[in-house]
Formats: sequence, structure tokens, C-alpha cells
Amino acid sequence: MRKYFPFLEWLPSYRLTTLNQDILAAVIVTVMLIPQSLAYAMLAGLPPEVGLYASIAPLVLYAVFGTSRTLSVGPVAVIALMTAAAAGAIAAPGSAEYLSTVILLTFISGLMLTLMGLFRLGFLANFLSHPVISGFITASAVIIAFSQLKHLLGIAASGHSLPELLADLARNLPNLNLTTLMIGAGTLLFLYGARRWLVPLLQRLGLSKGLAGGLGRLAPILAVVVTTWIAAAFDLAATGLAVVGDIPAGLPPLTLPSGDASLWQQLWVGALLISIVGFVESVSVGQTLAAKRRERIDPDQELVGLGCANLGSALSAGMPVTGGFSRSVVNFDAGARTPAAGAFTAVGILVVILWFTPLLATLPIATLAATIIIAVLSLVDLHAINHTWRYSKADFSAMLATIVITLLQGVEAGILAGVGLSLALHLYRTSRPHSAVVGRLSGTEHFRNVERHQVETDPHLLLLRVDESLYFPNARYLEDRVLELVSQHPQMQHLVLSCQAINHIDASALDSLESINQRLKDAGIQLHLAEVKGPVMDRLQLVEFPAQLNGRVFMSTYEAWQALARTTEPATA
Amino acid sequence: MRKYFPFLEWLPSYRLTTLNQDILAAVIVTVMLIPQSLAYAMLAGLPPEVGLYASIAPLVLYAVFGTSRTLSVGPVAVIALMTAAAAGAIAAPGSAEYLSTVILLTFISGLMLTLMGLFRLGFLANFLSHPVISGFITASAVIIAFSQLKHLLGIAASGHSLPELLADLARNLPNLNLTTLMIGAGTLLFLYGARRWLVPLLQRLGLSKGLAGGLGRLAPILAVVVTTWIAAAFDLAATGLAVVGDIPAGLPPLTLPSGDASLWQQLWVGALLISIVGFVESVSVGQTLAAKRRERIDPDQELVGLGCANLGSALSAGMPVTGGFSRSVVNFDAGARTPAAGAFTAVGILVVILWFTPLLATLPIATLAATIIIAVLSLVDLHAINHTWRYSKADFSAMLATIVITLLQGVEAGILAGVGLSLALHLYRTSRPHSAVVGRLSGTEHFRNVERHQVETDPHLLLLRVDESLYFPNARYLEDRVLELVSQHPQMQHLVLSCQAINHIDASALDSLESINQRLKDAGIQLHLAEVKGPVMDRLQLVEFPAQLNGRVFMSTYEAWQALARTTEPATA
Repeated sequence: MRKYFPFLEWLPSYRLTTLNQDILAAVIVTVMLIPQSLAYAMLAGLPPEVGLYASIAPLVLYAVFGTSRTLSVGPVAVIALMTAAAAGAIAAPGSAEYLSTVILLTFISGLMLTLMGLFRLGFLANFLSHPVISGFITASAVIIAFSQLKHLLGIAASGHSLPELLADLARNLPNLNLTTLMIGAGTLLFLYGARRWLVPLLQRLGLSKGLAGGLGRLAPILAVVVTTWIAAAFDLAATGLAVVGDIPAGLPPLTLPSGDASLWQQLWVGALLISIVGFVESVSVGQTLAAKRRERIDPDQELVGLGCANLGSALSAGMPVTGGFSRSVVNFDAGARTPAAGAFTAVGILVVILWFTPLLATLPIATLAATIIIAVLSLVDLHAINHTWRYSKADFSAMLATIVITLLQGVEAGILAGVGLSLALHLYRTSRPHSAVVGRLSGTEHFRNVERHQVETDPHLLLLRVDESLYFPNARYLEDRVLELVSQHPQMQHLVLSCQAINHIDASALDSLESINQRLKDAGIQLHLAEVKGPVMDRLQLVEFPAQLNGRVFMSTYEAWQALARTTEPATA
Repeated sequence: MRKYFPFLEWLPSYRLTTLNQDILAAVIVTVMLIPQSLAYAMLAGLPPEVGLYASIAPLVLYAVFGTSRTLSVGPVAVIALMTAAAAGAIAAPGSAEYLSTVILLTFISGLMLTLMGLFRLGFLANFLSHPVISGFITASAVIIAFSQLKHLLGIAASGHSLPELLADLARNLPNLNLTTLMIGAGTLLFLYGARRWLVPLLQRLGLSKGLAGGLGRLAPILAVVVTTWIAAAFDLAATGLAVVGDIPAGLPPLTLPSGDASLWQQLWVGALLISIVGFVESVSVGQTLAAKRRERIDPDQELVGLGCANLGSALSAGMPVTGGFSRSVVNFDAGARTPAAGAFTAVGILVVILWFTPLLATLPIATLAATIIIAVLSLVDLHAINHTWRYSKADFSAMLATIVITLLQGVEAGILAGVGLSLALHLYRTSRPHSAVVGRLSGTEHFRNVERHQVETDPHLLLLRVDESLYFPNARYLEDRVLELVSQHPQMQHLVLSCQAINHIDASALDSLESINQRLKDAGIQLHLAEVKGPVMDRLQLVEFPAQLNGRVFMSTYEAWQALARTTEPATA
């Protein structure tokens, strides 16, 4: 029960002090979440209220089904960009069709995450290697930052890849709106300055690191309040400044996703990518925070939590959500003790959307764009790029390819290429397992690599040790290696496979062993096995492989040597 | 030089006796190849001469660039079916556009194979596990057999999946042509009978197994000759019997593939699948035959050989080709010694197409359909299905899913699902590496699994041995495992990772180690490493990981134990 309803873990011992801490954290997160939700809805090409809707039901559902105590779910930048790319391929942003496409995308993603969780398929997230995901996020952040430039300049531009965006920006630059530029650039400079200089300054003035950081996080709120007031006071909307405008007040509507099969077919790849990227990011944030308090999250149950959050988002006219880094850190630092803090945050957002939306009407779009740019710049991880370059050139090339393809071809192509490269690199590495022809250390029962040690060998007998389990990525390699040895050793009459390092043989490798057995038989060579582990032998017995074997099964390599070696000759290393 | 032009290996020592053997084999293979080439062209929805064209240039090019001495390349059944599926999605069979689509498909596939060979990317074929490829071929054979039924009945039917085919056949059954049915069913029974009873009978009459088998293989030729003669003598074409008709005589035309970028984009997935399936099949046939004579083939150079064969096929109005099983076995059994036999076969086909095509005009389509059905039924591998079921339920489920999806959704969906399942299964297996908490065998320097042995432990110190290299498919598992241990052992102050089985740490696993290090630090636990191998440590030094480490690096687990253990307590197994 507790496994599937993690709130049963903390709810029974819920105390008044915990309630106070959770409510305080919820108030702080709510204030921070309002501009963020509006901004990411805008980034995804959606009306502002969609961002707020996505910050209500998902938080409550995550509180019930999620396992992290402090993770805060909602719209995040990279997922908003991926949403825009997936839905933008089907409908025009701003249209009713676009909104219903996003809702279906959210629903499919929620369904996928929930099913992956119920079937314990969290391991599928392993398709993505760290360099690839890190390169993808860096490239996405660059695209997001450039996509927001249009809002700072008050011009139009579209496109999901860097070249398209830059071409559009350059073309429309002459139409720039000065009021917008002043508000936008001013906010950008203020936010940058606050992050770069204010926090260190406050610390030097004697404030604790936590308090200085907390005040620093208030800078976006301050920018929103001040620019919204300026725009209202001077009626800047009349001079061409784009503002958020009227947000419909009231509860989120109940929406049902479309059942159009062809739309499902067009969206499932995008939904899968959004699900996996969102899950990987969320789990990484959740684990980091949990470890600080020696707590633990359960990745498979996290899938269920995120899946239900997205299903809830889809049913209440929202957009795809996942655990966000900055909001979760704020929640954690503000002292949230249980997922109830998330539910209280949902109440906070609900209060705002019921009674306070008029206050947001004159919030300049340029201000939101500036907060997005500052937020995503922290996602550009030059350190990770440099680190990977120094550590491994192979991993670095996968990372670089992901960055370049994402920038040039957009997010879906980028992440798909990254998945492909991760897997290709992995297959390349595992397809060539270490193996060694071994010989006997004179006078002992030990056998060592003939290339490294001075050992006895016999031209009629070859001992091959394979240092890896055998499964399909390396099955073919074993065939190639054995056939190579056969063609190199014309005198060979016996081949012994020394299997002490083989923990598993899959059906592909079994086929390879069978065809090696058959080919050696055709070539007049006996194939023997030595040191086969118990469970491996049990499985081979299921298909009577030992009985078909053209040679024998020996307990040890030494036993095989005693039985088969005839004309031994000392070899030099 | 010899690596890239394998014919330099055998040409200098070419003797008159070898020439005689090769010419004899070429004559036999040519006779067998004519109906086969016509049949597979028909299966791919192409005019009959395309199959003959594909059996000329590819054979010569493979003789120059291929490494197998006896492999015979040309059109094969499964690749013909995949060709029909890929090209059929773009143009209607029989149209000029369809032919040019197939030629482009052949060209792209040839280019992919050649490039994969030059860049040594043969390991990419490891994407396909044996159960998946075997299930795919079985399902394809079933689809092929049903797709030929229409030719036996003389009715129309189309579709690339079993349900579509069956529906079409049922709908058109009332139109069946009796003459066609008699010729088709008669040939089918004759061929089945020859395979089932004639060969054993001949053996029982005292013929050698080889000779009996050879005569058995003449059955299709006999069927072709007899039914062609009957159709001509009684002018059966006038009664509605479909025949091959006029085949244009003359050299294959020189064709240039289309440069239409959108067509390339639509065809590349199909071309890649054709390339990989063709390569896997061809290499497996080539290796089996090479091993019988203690020869060897080079898989990467095979890619180049098959690639050039396909490029040659595309430039001479042909279709995708690969090494075929039955023709290669005939070539081998007929005594071919070198790839020159393939070149002589090409000359044989050329002679046929220049002067003997009128003889083929009254060859009934129903006869060809019957030969196809008999040929592909031997591809239905019930033994492999049963074998895999007994050996491994996991591998069996991947196989079954591939069969079902191929039958219901067609070949492209089937093979793609198979690739996905192979990889998912592999990731699942490797994502949970074996690891064990170890303790000290009292009085020794040895450490063993606490769950299996009676060993000393210390509640403040945890020793974790990981029995696998660390890379991205299992990086997350290590994080989960460590965090689980931390939450289970509240007294823990030191965690020692015992690394003797770790041969490689990739960038993802490095990230995991770094975040484990950071999280343990936040939780007040020191992380130590022990028994790190030299090359692994060298790489960790590149990014100063040992310096960042929150604990120390020990030479051995025992050294770590001596330094860190304080209050040891005996544990029971």
C-alpha cells in the first residue's frame, strides 16, 4: 500500500510544527511560481493561464503519488521548449487546435510515465547518457534564450532551431519597439546584476549565505512588481508594449483529451521524449535534495507521481510538467518538510487565479522574457562540456554532436540523435569484450594471457578466456574471434573456452556457441568448455547444449589441459 | 591494399584447375538463379528483367570487394519483401516511379553499407539480437507465402501485412482462374513432394547424400521447364494464365539514382533496415561456409563488398541484393573455389538476357509463386522458436513480439520494434549490475558478501563491491543503490567502494560518482575508493576526482578496513 501511496508514509505523523513549516514554504514558492508559470506558458506558445493551471492539480497529485518530500513540480523551461516543438509541428501557436494538441501531448506523456512506473520501466531512462542530456540541456537553453530575444525587442520571430530564429530576428529587427527594448533590457540588466553582484554584496555586508541567496531570488519578483506598476501607471500598452493582458479568472476548466488516432500517432514520439527528459531531470533534482536529509526517492514510483501529475495537468487544461530545479531548491531552502507544502502551493496559485489575475494584466511580456533568459543561462553548463572533454573524448563527441544537432535541427532531432549516439557508443564499447588466449604457468595449475606472461602452450590445443558475459552485442565478436584463431592456427585440434567470467549467456550468444560448435566440427576441431558457472550450465542444460557439444565439459582449465595437451612447448611473452 | 581489394589474395595463384571448378559451379548456379531472380523481382513488385539485372553487376563487384570465397549475392526473398514495403509506401507497383524508387533505395542502401564498412561500423549490426532476427525472418516468410497465394489462384490482392492480405484474398476469391490454380497447385505439390520424398528416396536407392540433394535442387528447374513448355504448347495465356511475357533483351541500362532530397528522406529508414538485415543474413551465411574450409571473412570488408554490389545494382537498373543462403550453398556444393565463380555466373546471366529471354516468355507466374512459397517455407524456423522458448523466456518474448508486430503491422514496424526490444532487454539486463556489501573473513585479508558468508562488519563502515564496469546504463543504479544503503544504515560514517572488477568508468558514471560524493558529503559520510585499477585511476586523475573525493583512496580493501574500522562486530550469514 505504502509503495503506491507514499503519502501514507508521512501523513499519520503529521504535526502542527510541520504544518507551519510547510505553509511558510508554500507561500514563498507560490510568489515565485506565478511569474515562472506565466513565462513558461509563453515559452510553450500558450495563453498565460495555462501555466497557472499546470501549477495546481499536478502539485496535489504529486503530493499523493510522488516519493520526494521537497520536489516541486510544474512547467519548466526545457520541457516548455520541447512542448512548443512537438505541438508546433501540428498546429499554429495561439490557435484553439494548438491548445488541444498540447493537452493531448500532456495526457499521452502522463499515460506513458504512469505505465512506465507501474511496469517498473524506469531503466528505460538509461537510454540517455549524462553527456548527451547535459549537451541537450545546454543547447536547449541557448535556443530558449535566443527565442526570447524577440520579446525583448518587441518584434516577431519563430522557428525551433537557431538558424531559423536568427534569420527571423535579423529580418524583423527594423521593426523594434523602443519602449519594449527599454523595459526588457532594463529588467535583464537588473536581474543579471542582482545575481552577479547583489548576492555577493549582501554576503559581504554580513548576511548569511542562505539569506543573501534568498533575497537574490526575490529579484525577479521585484522586477515583475516594478515593471507591471510602470506599465500600468504610464499606460505603456498603448505605445506598443506587449503585456500579459486579461487572464480569465476562475477554476481551471475540465478538459478531455482528443481521441483522434492520427493525432496520437503524430504525438507519441514527442510525448515519449518529453517524458524521458522530464523524468531524468526530475529524478536527478529529487535525489540531490533527498540525499541532503538522508531520505530516499523510489525512481519507479516517481514515474507514477510524475505521470499522475501530467494526467492531472491534461485534465485541467494544463501543459506538461516535471520537477523543476530552481523551484524545488526554493521549496527545500524555505523549509518544506513534506509534499503537503506542494498541495498548499496549489492552494496559493488557486487563490491567485480566482481573485488576483487583474493585477497581472499589465505585466510586460518583455519582463517575463528577461526572467526566462536569466533562468536558462544557468542551464548552459560550460563546466560540464570542459569536464567531459578532459575526461573522455568519446563521450565528448557524443555530447558535441547532440549540441550541434539540437542547435541546427531543433530539440526532437537533437535528443533522438543523442539517444542514438549514446547507444551506438555503448554498443561499440561492449561489442569488443576483453578475451585472451591463455597458457599454463609452468609447474602450476594457473593459466595466464600468452601475450603478457611466459607460459606453456600446445599447438594442438588453444585455451581462450572470455572476460565478459555473452549477450547479443558481443555474440558476433566471439564468432569472429574464434574463426580468426582457427585460421591462424592450422594445427589446432581442440579449443577450450574458459568461462569463469561469464555470468550470463543470452539466446543470441547461445546461437553463436552453437554455430561455433558446428563450424569447428566441420573444420575437424573439438570445442570444449571449462569453469562454467552453475546457473549458466543449468540454462545450457535446458536446450541440451552440453550433449550437442562436439567436445567435453571440464571443471577447470587445468583439467582440460591435463586431458588434452600433448606436445607442450614453452612460449615467450 | 589486400585489405580493401581482397581479390589480390587469390588472383595471383589462380590455376587452370581452379578455373574449371569455378566455371562448373557458375553454370549450375546460373541455371538455378534464372527462375529465382525472376521470382524475387516479382515479389518486390518489379518487372522480371530487374531481377536478372541485379544478378550481373553485383556479382562482379562482390567478386572484387567481398571476402567470402563462395558467397553468391543477388535478390533474396526477405529483402525483396522489405523492398516492396519501403517502395510501396511511395509509389504504386508497376509504375515507372516505383522502379526509380527501388533504384534509389538500392543506391542509398549500397552507400550506407559501403560507408559503414569504410568507417568500420559493422558493430551496428549488433543492434539486432538473434531471436529478433529469427522471429522477423519467420514472420516475413509467412507474409511472403500468403502474398504469393494470389498468383496460385490467379486473383488480385495487395497489402504488406497479414490481415490486409487475407482480407483481399477472401474478397477476390470468387474470381479465381482454374488454369492458373491447376498449374500453381500442381507445381506446389510437385516441389513439396520432391523435397519431402524424392531426396530420401534417391538416398535409399543408393545415391550419395550430396548427389541426391543436388538432384532435389533440380526440381524447381524441371518445374519451370515443364510448365513453360505446357503453357506454350497449349497457349494457356489465352485462357487467362498469367505468364512472365516479353523480357527486353540486351545489356542492363545505365541508371542514375534520383537526387530528390525529399525522396532520400522518405527512403533512408527503409534503406537502413534493408542494409542491416541483408548484412546480418549475408555474414551469417558467409561465416558458415568459410568455416567449413577453415577460411575467414572480414565483416567490415563484407560491408564494403555488399555496398559496392548494391551500388552496382542501382547503376544497372537492379534491386537490393545480398548474400543468399540457398544459392551460396549450391555454389559451395558445386565446388566453387574463388569469387571468380560469381563473376562467371554473371557472364552466364548476361548470356541468358542477351539471347535466351524469348524462352522465358511463357513461364507461368504461378510456377514462380510456387517456387517462392516452397523456398520461404524453409525460412519458417519453428525449431528456433521452440529452442528460444526453452532457453530464455525474456528472449522468447522479444521474438514473439517481433513476429506478431511483423505479421500485423508489416516488415518495417516489425524490425523496428525488434530493434527496440533487443535494446530494451539489453539495457534492462545491464542496468542492474551485481554488487555486494562485503565484510571481512575473520583473521584474514579477504572480504566476502555479507549475505553469503560469516564475516566481520562495522556499523560505521560499509564496504560495497561492484562487479561490473560503470557506464551509463548502470550509472543511475549505483546512485540508487548507494542512497538506499545510506537510508538503511543510519550509523554509517564511511562508505568504501571496492573497485577490483571495474574496467571502465564512462563520463556518465563519473558524474554519478561525483554526485554520490557530494550527496554523501551533505549527509556527513566519507566516500573512499579501494583497489582502483591503473588505467581507471589515470582517467579519474584527468579531472582531479581523487582530489575532490570526500574520503581517501586505498590500495586494498584490507588497507581501508585497517584505517577505518573501529567497532567491529561479527555478522552471521
